[in-house]
Amino acid sequence: MSCLLDGRPAEALPLDDRGVSYGDALFETLRVVAGRPEAWSDHLARLARGAARLGLPDPDQGALAADVAHLFEDGGDGILRLWWSRGSGGRGYRPPEPATPRRMACRFPPATAPAATATVRHCRTRLARQPLLAGLKHANRLEQVLARSEWNDPDIHEGLVCDTDGWLVEAVQSNLFWVREGVLETPDLSESGVAGIIRNRVLNLAKGAGLPVREVRRPPEALTAASEAFLTNSVVHLWPIARCEGREWPAPGPVARELVPRLSQDLEQRP
Amino acid sequence: MSCLLDGRPAEALPLDDRGVSYGDALFETLRVVAGRPEAWSDHLARLARGAARLGLPDPDQGALAADVAHLFEDGGDGILRLWWSRGSGGRGYRPPEPATPRRMACRFPPATAPAATATVRHCRTRLARQPLLAGLKHANRLEQVLARSEWNDPDIHEGLVCDTDGWLVEAVQSNLFWVREGVLETPDLSESGVAGIIRNRVLNLAKGAGLPVREVRRPPEALTAASEAFLTNSVVHLWPIARCEGREWPAPGPVARELVPRLSQDLEQRP
Repeated sequence: MSCLLDGRPAEALPLDDRGVSYGDALFETLRVVAGRPEAWSDHLARLARGAARLGLPDPDQGALAADVAHLFEDGGDGILRLWWSRGSGGRGYRPPEPATPRRMACRFPPATAPAATATVRHCRTRLARQPLLAGLKHANRLEQVLARSEWNDPDIHEGLVCDTDGWLVEAVQSNLFWVREGVLETPDLSESGVAGIIRNRVLNLAKGAGLPVREVRRPPEALTAASEAFLTNSVVHLWPIARCEGREWPAPGPVARELVPRLSQDLEQRP
Repeated sequence: MSCLLDGRPAEALPLDDRGVSYGDALFETLRVVAGRPEAWSDHLARLARGAARLGLPDPDQGALAADVAHLFEDGGDGILRLWWSRGSGGRGYRPPEPATPRRMACRFPPATAPAATATVRHCRTRLARQPLLAGLKHANRLEQVLARSEWNDPDIHEGLVCDTDGWLVEAVQSNLFWVREGVLETPDLSESGVAGIIRNRVLNLAKGAGLPVREVRRPPEALTAASEAFLTNSVVHLWPIARCEGREWPAPGPVARELVPRLSQDLEQRP
């Protein structure tokens, strides 16, 4: 891992940063291919939306782009993590006015190639319903930490999580899609979950391909009844689900097979 | 502010700490008087309960006590902040096994003396209901940051927050009590909120004094109907509420007057 803090190489962060104290920060994780960050404008837009929602200063897009250029000046591949916090503050929750935000950009090695299909499980951990934070990629992630702590089996790739009312929301680090009676469904994220960049691209591509799509509230049984299912995130893109606790699907299914090349093309054409 | 990180004076924290990435940490804030931390064993016990709930390694109580002795070797007064994180980790939510936790202890100046009575308001920000995290003093505090951002008026001392179902939970940085038909009531914290150390002492002292107490779910109107109300936290201890959006109380009320000296004595006798 190699990091820039406010544009300068760094290994440490001031102790009084509000990210440290309260998770008062946002982040983005994305793939960089040959020095080029994927879906860059989408990630910047989500970061800006999150900042507006939390009352954080607007991210400095030029400075973030310069960080990426610096970290990937070798034109290599890797995973990029951006982090945008409210900066240093005193004791107490009250945000400093004006805040002096702090930005961090870190380069990680490329992800190891995942298995061709995913095996998933249902998590016991449930996500709270909080419309004020739903959709954001904020740094309050204890629920995800608890959910990911539920299994150690390396043959289980992801865990599906419901909200406290029992509706499917997402997987621990991916969004979830399934096909039900010819309709591509994915959980509604107005109360919980992270509105993934690839999720949004897939929804638009499916609509563009004439496939009916629906954002829904469904119990876990909806997955069992599905004809196919897949995960999406910015590192793996689209990952067909082959197994979930006894239920098996031939994977990839027809909808995944149609969407994968469209998604690759879309990510190349609209960086 | 002067800080020790794992026992050594420090101003910065490794960037890859999971407290920074995910708020994967716990904290405690307490008052130190003449070098002696108040309710020390209560704070250590809450920290240990939190660590058990999050699957964090058990806090090293001896090391934490040594940190306090070091920071307050002048025998002075101040505010102490302890922080206990899962330590460094790679990319992704999965906790490192085994974790190498990181501890921080910081000394702040004593709090300025608060107004004799508190003026409070109702916040629009609502707290999510999440039994897995309820009661803990964890470092996922965006809800409190949002609630505290709602007002700038220095004459408003605290903001009351309800959960997403509309039940009173607490104030932004205090617990809330009120008296209703001779019963001391405070919100039930099984779904949201922080189980304050002083809250717990007050509940026990009230029971010991023969005063009926009840942990309840009540709408904000319960406060308007109360004969008196007060806040508690580890810095201010017990703070009578004199005003809340048009409603005024003679403060302190009779229950607060009875409890304040008992609480002072209790904090002296059971450090």
